[in-house]
Amino acid sequence: MSRPPLTFAPHHSTLIAPYMPPSPSPSSHPRKPHTTLTFATSLDSNLALSPGTQTPLSGPLSKALTHYLRSRHTAILIGVGTAIADDPSLNCRIAGVALEHQPRPVVLDPHGRWPISATSSVVQLAREGQGRAPWIITCRELEAEKREVVESVGGQVFVVSPPPPPKFPLATPISWPHILALLSTHGITSLMIEGGGTVINTLLHPNNMALVDSVIVTIAPVWLGRGGVQVCPEARADEHGAKVPVSRLRDVQWVPLGEDVVLCGRPAGRG
Amino acid sequence: MSRPPLTFAPHHSTLIAPYMPPSPSPSSHPRKPHTTLTFATSLDSNLALSPGTQTPLSGPLSKALTHYLRSRHTAILIGVGTAIADDPSLNCRIAGVALEHQPRPVVLDPHGRWPISATSSVVQLAREGQGRAPWIITCRELEAEKREVVESVGGQVFVVSPPPPPKFPLATPISWPHILALLSTHGITSLMIEGGGTVINTLLHPNNMALVDSVIVTIAPVWLGRGGVQVCPEARADEHGAKVPVSRLRDVQWVPLGEDVVLCGRPAGRG
Ligand SMILES: NC(=O)c1ccc[n+]([C@@H]2O[C@H](COP(=O)([O-])OP(=O)(O)OC[C@H]3O[C@@H](n4cnc5c(N)ncnc54)[C@H](OP(=O)(O)O)[C@@H]3O)[C@@H](O)[C@H]2O)c1
Ligand SMILES: NC(=O)c1ccc[n+]([C@@H]2O[C@H](COP(=O)([O-])OP(=O)(O)OC[C@H]3O[C@@H](n4cnc5c(N)ncnc54)[C@H](OP(=O)(O)O)[C@@H]3O)[C@@H](O)[C@H]2O)c1
Repeated sequence: MSRPPLTFAPHHSTLIAPYMPPSPSPSSHPRKPHTTLTFATSLDSNLALSPGTQTPLSGPLSKALTHYLRSRHTAILIGVGTAIADDPSLNCRIAGVALEHQPRPVVLDPHGRWPISATSSVVQLAREGQGRAPWIITCRELEAEKREVVESVGGQVFVVSPPPPPKFPLATPISWPHILALLSTHGITSLMIEGGGTVINTLLHPNNMALVDSVIVTIAPVWLGRGGVQVCPEARADEHGAKVPVSRLRDVQWVPLGEDVVLCGRPAGRG
Repeated sequence: MSRPPLTFAPHHSTLIAPYMPPSPSPSSHPRKPHTTLTFATSLDSNLALSPGTQTPLSGPLSKALTHYLRSRHTAILIGVGTAIADDPSLNCRIAGVALEHQPRPVVLDPHGRWPISATSSVVQLAREGQGRAPWIITCRELEAEKREVVESVGGQVFVVSPPPPPKFPLATPISWPHILALLSTHGITSLMIEGGGTVINTLLHPNNMALVDSVIVTIAPVWLGRGGVQVCPEARADEHGAKVPVSRLRDVQWVPLGEDVVLCGRPAGRG
């Protein structure tokens, strides 16, 4: 499980500083964590060549950025599709990052589909003290052996009941305000949401986008082609039924990083 | 038809200089023009919100870039879908650009679908001496009144016969090498291909991408959502049937321009 540690240039961390979570103050009790939506796409907005596979997209510098971002957040959230496809590590591999600065991996797995076992990367890393133990947010009780694996390394399973039917067409099993409130209750002050496609596309809907504080997207100069896992949210119409853009960013900064570019911004329409 | 002239910063023209066509030498007779593929997309790789509509995407600085690019090419090519949807001007509105530096508008209209008339933008601009008269490349003779409109302002209609069935699945009515050779024969030394979706997606196929010398893409920080005109080429597989990226760029440069970013590059795999 040992991979080379990464380094991240101070110059770049200055550029993205305005988009980072504020230092948490012990007296404040926010109702939701500072939420950063972050992912890497191709020019044709694909996260991966095909569903269920992992496609290396960004270069070493952008990868170091991802790990720097992980060190600046108290938790990282992914959907179960990504957990299954990537068996991701979800820790920060920047040299010298102590366990208490490692983010908490959180997997959104409403139907208990993640085949987590003693050999899953997050479990192994937690056992070795190189990452925190995972949390799973689900709508049904997990099989006993899965719960045991999670708890054996200090992780937790949160069984939440499904919310009332939502008012808008994005029927996600658990509403995003509910997810963020749950994490906040359990001490998460800053959350980095890393994907995958389903998670990102539902968050880009304006109803959910208001929950996002910062967006950091890496774009690699490649076209993957049709049939990939694409970031392209549901279409949106105005009150007259005319199609309008789904979401726009403001306070935009583009940071070239090797062959890639990193886009930093905030959802437009937020104060 | 009078719109405000645009200005373009010398600093930016320096950055994109390596991707510009070389000065044509009177002794050289290239078989194809220097070809630049250029367009503006949203973050979800959409050119427009819906087929048949025009969506303003890029800011004023990127718009000035487009017009600067037009001044550096001897012709601009678009597909008939764009001609119908946008009624585009296809001239260069940078202050002080003389008619002899205006690019030649070329419309690819194999089935004669473009309803060109005396009120079409390109025809009006040609009549007013603010742009060159259009050329149409087609596979069938145009209606007499359309041909008359084109020729009345000094334009031309090229009726070419359809090529033999192509060896690859992108059955375009006229092969790209054929189109480029035709334009070269008629004195076009540099060609800017501006879209739309069908034209771009077929050019991104590796078989055609080798014909492209430079790629210049503007990306605006907005998601348009599903159902738009999307740049996303046909998928590609290697000799074992495994999906692989369709096209990659090299010599990449990212130029932030207002809220947008401009990506300059060359197709990987070219010398
Ligand atoms: N390039 C990158 O930056 C990047 C990053 C991450 C992932 N990826 C790629 O993305 C792909 C995976 O994406 P994906 O779309 O298949 O899966 P995903 O978004 O990771 O997971 C989707 C699943 O998570 C659950 N989920 C999502 N939102 C939920 C909510 N609000 N409440 C409860 N559950 C929710 C649902 O599970 P149920 O179906 O059980 O209801 C949903 O089907 C992989 O190919 C991976 O490599 C790429
Ligand atoms: N954002 C931007 O930078 C930008 C730039 C340009 C256009 N656009 C948008 O793109 C949309 C139009 O795109 P589109 O995909 O509908 O149309 P398009 O690509 O402009 O034109 C497609 C048509 O051109 C003809 N064609 C294409 N390749 C050909 C070839 N090799 N040989 C002969 N004919 C060929 C075919 O006509 P037939 O169907 O008759 O065979 C084809 O259907 C509009 O919404 C426009 O606003 C945006």
